[in-house]
Amino acid sequence: MAILETIKDPLDVRRLDAADLPRLAAEVRDLLVSSVARTGGHLGPNLGVVELTIALHRVFDSPRDRILFDTGHQAYVHKMLTGRAGEFGTLRQEGGLSGYPSQAESDHDVIENSHASTALSYADGLAKALTLRGETDRTVVAVIGDGALTGGMAWEALNNIAGRKDLPLIVVVNDNGRSYSPTIGGLAYHLSSLRMTQGYEHALEFVKNNLGRVPLVGPPIYDTLHGMKKGLKDILTPQAMFEDLGLKYVGPIDGHDEAAVEAALRRARAFRGPVIVHVLTRKGYGYSPAENHDEDCFHSPQPFDPLTGEERPKPHSWTNVFGEEMVKLGAERSDVVAITAAMLHPTGLAAFAEAYPDRVYDVGIAEQHAMTSAAGLALGGLRPVVAVYATFLNRAFDQLLMDVALHRLPVTVVLDRAGVTGDDGASHNGMWDMSILQVVPGLSLAAPRDGMRLRELLAEAVAIEDGPSVVRFPKGAVPTEIEAVGRLGEMDVLRAGDGDVLLVAVGPMAEACLEAATLLDAQGISATVVDPRWVKPLDQALVLAASAHKLVAVVEDNGRVGGVGDAVARLLRDADVDVPVRTFGIPQRFLDHAKRAKILGTSGLNGQDLARKITEAVARRSPVLESHPARQVQTTD
Amino acid sequence: MAILETIKDPLDVRRLDAADLPRLAAEVRDLLVSSVARTGGHLGPNLGVVELTIALHRVFDSPRDRILFDTGHQAYVHKMLTGRAGEFGTLRQEGGLSGYPSQAESDHDVIENSHASTALSYADGLAKALTLRGETDRTVVAVIGDGALTGGMAWEALNNIAGRKDLPLIVVVNDNGRSYSPTIGGLAYHLSSLRMTQGYEHALEFVKNNLGRVPLVGPPIYDTLHGMKKGLKDILTPQAMFEDLGLKYVGPIDGHDEAAVEAALRRARAFRGPVIVHVLTRKGYGYSPAENHDEDCFHSPQPFDPLTGEERPKPHSWTNVFGEEMVKLGAERSDVVAITAAMLHPTGLAAFAEAYPDRVYDVGIAEQHAMTSAAGLALGGLRPVVAVYATFLNRAFDQLLMDVALHRLPVTVVLDRAGVTGDDGASHNGMWDMSILQVVPGLSLAAPRDGMRLRELLAEAVAIEDGPSVVRFPKGAVPTEIEAVGRLGEMDVLRAGDGDVLLVAVGPMAEACLEAATLLDAQGISATVVDPRWVKPLDQALVLAASAHKLVAVVEDNGRVGGVGDAVARLLRDADVDVPVRTFGIPQRFLDHAKRAKILGTSGLNGQDLARKITEAVARRSPVLESHPARQVQTTD
Repeated sequence: MAILETIKDPLDVRRLDAADLPRLAAEVRDLLVSSVARTGGHLGPNLGVVELTIALHRVFDSPRDRILFDTGHQAYVHKMLTGRAGEFGTLRQEGGLSGYPSQAESDHDVIENSHASTALSYADGLAKALTLRGETDRTVVAVIGDGALTGGMAWEALNNIAGRKDLPLIVVVNDNGRSYSPTIGGLAYHLSSLRMTQGYEHALEFVKNNLGRVPLVGPPIYDTLHGMKKGLKDILTPQAMFEDLGLKYVGPIDGHDEAAVEAALRRARAFRGPVIVHVLTRKGYGYSPAENHDEDCFHSPQPFDPLTGEERPKPHSWTNVFGEEMVKLGAERSDVVAITAAMLHPTGLAAFAEAYPDRVYDVGIAEQHAMTSAAGLALGGLRPVVAVYATFLNRAFDQLLMDVALHRLPVTVVLDRAGVTGDDGASHNGMWDMSILQVVPGLSLAAPRDGMRLRELLAEAVAIEDGPSVVRFPKGAVPTEIEAVGRLGEMDVLRAGDGDVLLVAVGPMAEACLEAATLLDAQGISATVVDPRWVKPLDQALVLAASAHKLVAVVEDNGRVGGVGDAVARLLRDADVDVPVRTFGIPQRFLDHAKRAKILGTSGLNGQDLARKITEAVARRSPVLESHPARQVQTTD
Repeated sequence: MAILETIKDPLDVRRLDAADLPRLAAEVRDLLVSSVARTGGHLGPNLGVVELTIALHRVFDSPRDRILFDTGHQAYVHKMLTGRAGEFGTLRQEGGLSGYPSQAESDHDVIENSHASTALSYADGLAKALTLRGETDRTVVAVIGDGALTGGMAWEALNNIAGRKDLPLIVVVNDNGRSYSPTIGGLAYHLSSLRMTQGYEHALEFVKNNLGRVPLVGPPIYDTLHGMKKGLKDILTPQAMFEDLGLKYVGPIDGHDEAAVEAALRRARAFRGPVIVHVLTRKGYGYSPAENHDEDCFHSPQPFDPLTGEERPKPHSWTNVFGEEMVKLGAERSDVVAITAAMLHPTGLAAFAEAYPDRVYDVGIAEQHAMTSAAGLALGGLRPVVAVYATFLNRAFDQLLMDVALHRLPVTVVLDRAGVTGDDGASHNGMWDMSILQVVPGLSLAAPRDGMRLRELLAEAVAIEDGPSVVRFPKGAVPTEIEAVGRLGEMDVLRAGDGDVLLVAVGPMAEACLEAATLLDAQGISATVVDPRWVKPLDQALVLAASAHKLVAVVEDNGRVGGVGDAVARLLRDADVDVPVRTFGIPQRFLDHAKRAKILGTSGLNGQDLARKITEAVARRSPVLESHPARQVQTTD
C-alpha cells in the first residue's frame, strides 16, 4: 500500500510520476476488493472508474473545481484519493465512511443523493452560478453513467446545457454499457454501436491508435477529433447524437488508459464551454470474479471471499417471496405483465422474466416512464405490476397520481426496500411512501407483516380493478410468520386484549408490537394488537375497535409525519371518536447510515421503548395508574 | 356552420370531400374563437392544430385507433370532430365540456391529465399491450408539442419506443416552436434550425414543393424521403436527431396543408412500427389577434372581444404581487435568481426577467431539472427562487426532497395556483402540496392569507439559509387585506375569543374563518382565529393556545389528507394535549371543473358550513349546549 498511503489529498495524486500511476491503480483495486469483501458495498462500478478517477484528480483542482458523481456509488476511488483510504475498514458501518459522497466527510464531496441522473442538473446550476459570479476559471465536472442517461432529468439537463455556450462544464459519460444490468433502449443501442460492431477489445485498440495519440499541444481537441471522426461516423455515432443537441463531444476514450483520459480532460477543460467526454470503461475491470459476473459485474455484493468472489449465502428475502409469487401470478393470469426501471434482478423479477420473457418490460432508469407506460398497458387491457425500490417511487409520484389514479387504472406498484433500509444512507431509506401515497385518491395500500401476508396481499392487490394498488415491504430476510388469532373486518387480530390499549401494528412492526403487548401486560395494561393489512383505505372496523379502548397506538416503519398514524387519528376524528391516539414511526429526518435493526431500535420502534411510552401515555390520563411504578420511567426524547 | 353541424362522429369527417375541408377548418376556427371569447380557455394551441386534427380523424379510426393528446389543451378541435361541437357554449363551465379530454365525455378521449410530456409513455404502454394481445392492426397515435419534448419523461419514452421495432405507434410532433412561450434549449435550437435558416414562409414553401408532393402510392415514404432528405440534411436536421435514437422520421410537413398531413400519416401508419411525424404549425393560425400576440399567441386568454382580441382587464392577482416583490428582492439582493419551467409570464417572472435578464433561467417544461439546477445554483452561492404552479411541483418532489432538502440548500419554491384552481379540472388543482411537503425534513412552508402577507413571507423565506422554503398561494385576485389584532409566537391573531374554539385559518381561508367566528358568536360560542403564517414547522405557541380551548378547528385550502390539519393534530398529540381537533379541507378526490369559489363552497369551506360543523362538534361534547338551537342544524354530508 506504499503509494496509496501517501495520498492525503488530490495534490498528492497530481505530484505523482505518471509511471507510478499503474501501481496506484492496482493498490486502489486491491483495497476496493479487500474492503468490500468484508463490508459489502458497491464493487463493480468502482473497479471500472479507477483510472478515470485518478485522471480527474490529476487534471482538476478539487474542491475549487467541483467533481460531481451521479448516483454516487462509484465514488469510492474518489474517497481514497481525497484522504480517506485509511478509513475503508469502516465503510457503510455506523459512524464510518458512507457508501456515497458525504459533505460531512469531505469538502471534495458534493452530491449525497444516490438517485440517478441528477448530476447534470446540479452541474448546470453550479456552472451558471460560477458564470454569474465571474468565477469562470473554475470548472464543474459531472461524471454520469450511460445507464443514468436513460433517466429523463439527464436529458432535461443536456437540453439546457446545450443552450449555454458559456458554462465551464464538462460531462464525463462513463459508458460501461450497463446501469445495474445492461443499459436499455434506443440510446443504449446507439452508444453501444461501437462495441457491438467492433468488439470491445478491437474497439479500444482502434480508439487508442486513432484518438489516444492526439498530441498534448496543438489545436483544441474538438477540431482535431471533429475532422477525424466525421469520416468515422458510421461506427462512432455517439458524436452525432450529442452534436445534434448542440454539445461538443470528445471521445470515445479508453477509460482504462489513464494518460488518454487525462489528455481528453485537459483539452475539454481548455474549451471553457460545455463538453461531453465519452469514456469507455468495463464494470468490474481488473478483478476477474467481477468482470465475469454475468448478472451485474458484482454491482453491489454482500460480503464475499476476495479470492474466489464467492458471496455469503443470502437468507430467504421479501424480494424472493415477491419473485416467486409473480411467477405464480403470471401462470394464473396471462394479462399480468411486469415493469422494472433497470432493476430486473434486484426487484426479484428475474424468474418472471425467464418464464414470460415477452411480458416483462425493463424501461431503463426511468421511473416516470415506467409508471405512465404501466398506465398505457392497463388502458390496453393488461394488468401491470411495477416493481421498484420504495425511495425511487418519489420520482414517479406525479405519474402515479395523475396518469394512473386520475384515470382509475389498475396498476399495482410493488415497493421493495420500504421503511428503513439503513446501510445505504438517507437517500435509500424508503420512509416516505406511506405518507405521500395517503393523498392519492382511490389508491389502496397494503403493508404485509410477513411472507405469507405478502403472497396474500399481492394477490388481493392484483385483483383490484378500479384503481392503483401498492404493496410495500422492507429489505432483507422475511421474518417468522405470525398467525392471526382472529379477524376484525379486513384486519388481522394478532392478540386480543380487554380494553386498555389498541395497538395498530403496521406490516413488519407486528413483532415489536406483540413484544410491547407482553411487556404492557406485565404492567397491568391489557393490549389488543391488530394488523390492518390494508393501511389505505383503513377499515371502518378500526373505529369500533378504537372506541372500545382507552388509548390507540399506531406503530409503523415509515416517517411518522403523514403516515398511517396520522391516517388513523384522522379516521377517528372524522368519526367523532376522541380516544387519545399516539403514533410511533421513523423520526422525520434524514438518517445516517447504519443497520436497519439498529436504526429501528434507536428510533424507539422496539418492544421495550414502545411499551414504556405507551405505559406513560396511559398513566397520564388514568389516575388509578398514577402511582404505578411505570410512571417513574424517564422519557428520553 | 353547415358542415360542422353535420359532424356527429369522425366517420362524418372521413366521408367529406377533400374540397370541403378548408370550409370545415374555417368553421372550426370560427367556433373556437367565438366560444373561447365567451368562456375563456385555450385558443392559440387549438387554432394551430385544426388541419392536423382533421387529418388525424380522416386517417385513423378512433376510438379503435387511439389518439392521445399530450397536455390535452389542444384537444378542442378533436372534441368538435367527435360530436361535441354543439356543446362548446358550456366549455369549462360547471357540468359542461371539460377543457381537456375526458373519458366521461367521449370514448374518443384518453388522457385526462394536463401535465405535459406524458403521452409518449402512455402510447408506449398502449402499443405494447396491443402487440402482446395480437391487435396490431390498431394504431396508437400520440400528438405532442415540441415544447413537451423538453420534458424528461418524453425522452425516457422515446428511448424505450426506439428499442421496439414492433410497436404500432406514431408520434406526431406538433412543432410550433413554442410551449407556452418559445421553446427552450438545445433541442429547440435544433428543431428550429429549419425555420431559423429559411424563414417560416420560405421553409413551408420549400417543404411543400419538395416533400408535400410525394405520390400517394409507391414505396414507403421513408425510403423516398430518406433518400431525398439525406441530401438536405444541413437544413432538415431533426431527422438526424431522431434517427440517432433509432426512430423512423417523416417530415417536416406543413401542418396547415391538410392533404400533406394526411398523406404523411397514411404512410406512417403503413409502416407498422414506431415513426415520428414532424409537423410544422403556427400557434394561433388563422386568427390574427392570436398570431400577432407576442407573449403567448393567445395561449389561454380570459374572455375577450372576438373582433379585436381585446381581453377583459384582469384584477390585481397573487401572481402580480409575487412578480412585483421579486423585482424588489432582485434589487435588494444581487444573489437572488429566478427559475421557471417554461412559464415566465404565467408565474409572474416577466418583470424580473426584464430587470435582471442574466438572473432568470427558463429551463423548458422540465420541473425536475428546474429543482436540481436550483440546488446547483444554491451550491454555487446564489439564492434561487423556483416559481411553478403547485400541481407541477409533484413532478419535482424527489428532487426537492433529495437534491435540495437532504443537502440543506436554500432554495425557495413559490407555488402559484395552490389549492383549488377550478376551471381547468382535476389535474390543475394544487391540492397536494401542503400534504406531501410535510414529510420533507428541514423544509419551511408558508401560506400567506393576502398580498401583504405574501410580500412579508416571501422575504422571510428568502432569508432562510439552511434549507428549502416554500410559499404557496391560490389563483386569482388578491383578497382584501386582513390585519392581525395581535401576535402569538410567529402566528397572527386575527380575532381574540375566550376559550371555546381555536380556529386555525390557513392562508386564504382567513376570511371564511372570520365569518365562521362571527356566526359562532351568535350561537354563544366564542372563537379565537389565528393564522399560523408558517404551516411547517408549526409554532409551539399553537400548543399553548390549543390547551386553552375546548376544540381546535383547522381550515385549509388543501386536500384534507395529510395537510395542516393532520400536522396540528400530530403536534398536539405529541405534546400530550388531547383537546379534540376537527380538520376541514378539500375532499380528497379528483374534482370536476367548476369555479374555485363554487368548489370551496360545496366543499364546506365557507363561513356558514364551518360554523355549523363546529357548532355541532362543540355541542357533542358540551352538555350545556345540548339544548341550544344550533344542535338542530342538520349535517348534510
